[in-house]
Amino acid sequence: MNYKIMGRFIAQILTIEGLFMLPALSISLFYGEWNAVQGFLAAILAIAVTAAVLFTLCRKAATALNAREGMVCVGISWIILSLYGCLPFVISGEIPRFVDAFFEIVSGFTTTGSSILADVEALSWGILYWRSFSHWLGGMGVLVFLLAIAPGEKDKGFTMHLLRAESPGPSVGKLVPRMRKTATILYLIYITLTVINIIFLLFGKMPLLEAICTAFGTAGTGGFGVKNDSMGSYSPYLQNVTTVFMFLFGINFSCYYLLLLRQFRNVFKDEELLSYCGIVVTAIVLISVNIRHLYPTLSETVRHAAFQVSTIITTTGYSTTDFDLWPAFSKGILMFLMVVGACAGSTGGGLKVTRLLLLVKSLRSNVGKVLNPRRVRLVRNNGEVVSQQLLDNTNAYLAAYVCIIILSYILISIDGFSIGTNFTAVLACFNNIGPGLEAVGPMCNFSGFSDFSKLVLSMDMLAGRLEIFPILVLFSRNTWRK
Amino acid sequence: MNYKIMGRFIAQILTIEGLFMLPALSISLFYGEWNAVQGFLAAILAIAVTAAVLFTLCRKAATALNAREGMVCVGISWIILSLYGCLPFVISGEIPRFVDAFFEIVSGFTTTGSSILADVEALSWGILYWRSFSHWLGGMGVLVFLLAIAPGEKDKGFTMHLLRAESPGPSVGKLVPRMRKTATILYLIYITLTVINIIFLLFGKMPLLEAICTAFGTAGTGGFGVKNDSMGSYSPYLQNVTTVFMFLFGINFSCYYLLLLRQFRNVFKDEELLSYCGIVVTAIVLISVNIRHLYPTLSETVRHAAFQVSTIITTTGYSTTDFDLWPAFSKGILMFLMVVGACAGSTGGGLKVTRLLLLVKSLRSNVGKVLNPRRVRLVRNNGEVVSQQLLDNTNAYLAAYVCIIILSYILISIDGFSIGTNFTAVLACFNNIGPGLEAVGPMCNFSGFSDFSKLVLSMDMLAGRLEIFPILVLFSRNTWRK
Repeated sequence: MNYKIMGRFIAQILTIEGLFMLPALSISLFYGEWNAVQGFLAAILAIAVTAAVLFTLCRKAATALNAREGMVCVGISWIILSLYGCLPFVISGEIPRFVDAFFEIVSGFTTTGSSILADVEALSWGILYWRSFSHWLGGMGVLVFLLAIAPGEKDKGFTMHLLRAESPGPSVGKLVPRMRKTATILYLIYITLTVINIIFLLFGKMPLLEAICTAFGTAGTGGFGVKNDSMGSYSPYLQNVTTVFMFLFGINFSCYYLLLLRQFRNVFKDEELLSYCGIVVTAIVLISVNIRHLYPTLSETVRHAAFQVSTIITTTGYSTTDFDLWPAFSKGILMFLMVVGACAGSTGGGLKVTRLLLLVKSLRSNVGKVLNPRRVRLVRNNGEVVSQQLLDNTNAYLAAYVCIIILSYILISIDGFSIGTNFTAVLACFNNIGPGLEAVGPMCNFSGFSDFSKLVLSMDMLAGRLEIFPILVLFSRNTWRK
Repeated sequence: MNYKIMGRFIAQILTIEGLFMLPALSISLFYGEWNAVQGFLAAILAIAVTAAVLFTLCRKAATALNAREGMVCVGISWIILSLYGCLPFVISGEIPRFVDAFFEIVSGFTTTGSSILADVEALSWGILYWRSFSHWLGGMGVLVFLLAIAPGEKDKGFTMHLLRAESPGPSVGKLVPRMRKTATILYLIYITLTVINIIFLLFGKMPLLEAICTAFGTAGTGGFGVKNDSMGSYSPYLQNVTTVFMFLFGINFSCYYLLLLRQFRNVFKDEELLSYCGIVVTAIVLISVNIRHLYPTLSETVRHAAFQVSTIITTTGYSTTDFDLWPAFSKGILMFLMVVGACAGSTGGGLKVTRLLLLVKSLRSNVGKVLNPRRVRLVRNNGEVVSQQLLDNTNAYLAAYVCIIILSYILISIDGFSIGTNFTAVLACFNNIGPGLEAVGPMCNFSGFSDFSKLVLSMDMLAGRLEIFPILVLFSRNTWRK
């Protein structure tokens, strides 16, 4: 393990985190929230000291990094990011217990949106901003950001391994040959869409700071809101805007790049995009039919159905209504959407639509092999043959996914909640959604769990956001052997 | 599709079923249960007519059969077996509705043990015997039985494909080169163990017919009992005997053959057997600690823990206590055991321990590949290298397993039961266990579900018993194309 490179790397990440705390600090100063100001100042100081020490210790480091080291780097840097990121919550006294604050910020960075807070509206604006901003930063990835702003092209293996470990989806789509330029393009698209979202919200007469926080949660597909009832009390216009933007942020960002390049045909023939749209429309129709007796008008029914489908499949986690009160069939569909998740290369979590497609195709090919062993069957994606390595990787992902869900379920079941609560709590955290059902439903929160369960669920959120392997590798003996 | 060979084959299977109804008919005659007598006579008549017609129509049939046809044969013959097998229930009037009777006999043949009956003790002895006997026949497999008694060695490809489709586990262990002899040896071991089980039960002063029915349910790892409280009111001795025999019937039968051949070392070094024992012991210890406050003495605690672990991991489904009242942690472990299931080559259901081992090893190998793409990693089982084909097959099995569970969950959720009920109902049926938790817990039954859900769950039971592919292939377009 190359500790020096890791140290320098963590120092860079921490520096970025410290710089991003400055806007939150300014907001707290503006509103005169002195506890929050103290919190941010102390956190920035701690970050500055740590980063300085790490920079000094790890000055002379090589840039060569293998795949395993890249994963370890990413896994550890996300944990450290969260450890320092929760300091403002603790020091300001707004979330006094460290485990709770850690859970909250992990939930933020991983764009989960599960909260241990019962009363969000009691928080100061600085803290609310930082909480929502963690979604925005975690959504596209802090390493991708580092890459976009880093001076000069780094070692190719280095950046590739890091990007692969942090980006969602089974394979990293390089938009352009240079990784740094890819990262920059991704962030430019991300910023542009976020700004458009804010403008649309402002049109609906949402106050500026609320609009910024809401757009951060939407863009990162996170789900931390600024109101206790999430989006429930906002106007239908604001809810519909959010429905559309959640859907848009769940699409693979390379589609937007292709649109900019005017390659419309490639976008509208993309199998993942078509399946994603198909699943969303089918789910909205099925749920609308199933819940039609619960709401007075058709438009209200469809609005709630569309919002909830969009929020769950993109793993955002906002809500406009208590869908835990919906019939079991609708809840079943939502649980299915929880597992599916958004498109690869988007800010959403979950298994990813493309992985689902690969699994179904690989299943069909393997069933074909069982029935007719002599015939060779190739799995294709968008017309191109998929390599056996990618298929193996996808199957390993599913196996790891199932193992982690079962293990987490058993560990948190010690707390004694119901099957539905435990199961959807694990699903909601591991897939970075936010709310589950029953005792962790959209109108409830995660504060009832023990500290141990909160840590288990925090690791689930990190494993879900980083797609398992960067966290799994931290628990492997080989990683820490000389 | 070779329809003639299929017809002749179904005729043979039906003939066996008709012959096996004769003991049940005799018991009904002995006890003077005239409704049941009518039911059995009518069913035997229907079977005789159908078999005669099929034999006449399909006299001249080839014996060549490919893998797909073998699977279709097995899938269809199990469905037909169930359609005729439920006739005595319906005609005798003891289970008047056809869907209920079909669910009950499918649950019997697939050794699931889920029941729609609230009052088992109201049934006549003939019907009780037939219900329990369906477990015994389904446990080892009616096709294996046909193979064991069929005159002369049939075409090798023919028998191999059938045996592969009906036998549990990822690969068929041929004990001896000749398939017919393998089938005979399997049934002789099965009969011997069943008889020993009956003798042990008689020692505990259980009445003969009860002992036979209980042993049938244990041997087939089925779980239909003759009492409303399953095994709850029996003496600790009888409960412990059943615990041990359920455990024994969950072991791969080739281990018993190796014991007969005095190859002790091969048995005690078998990875699957060791893992199976390890899982059982760990689960008993964890649950005993977790439920220690619920029972007055340590021995009673361990007795209940051991019985429930044994009944769930072997997918039998008897119970001595209402484990739905246990703490969530113990229920979590039981749900894990539901998924694992017994050893391959036993009469138990579930994913099978050997598949779990293969999945974990394949996961480790694939994680290794992700971290270090250049190193070649081979997966070994009992020291031998596992073929890529078997690994692909196992991964396809897991993917199909997850897909079917999600789909079934959504379909039965239309009935509006809770998440825990729906989820464990699907797990209990698909893994051929019997009782689930909450509204389908050990003290409840499946009668509350709609007819549609009962049919979905019936298909789940068949898919679970036949290990998915023989049922999946019935829904494939290619199968029915000319």
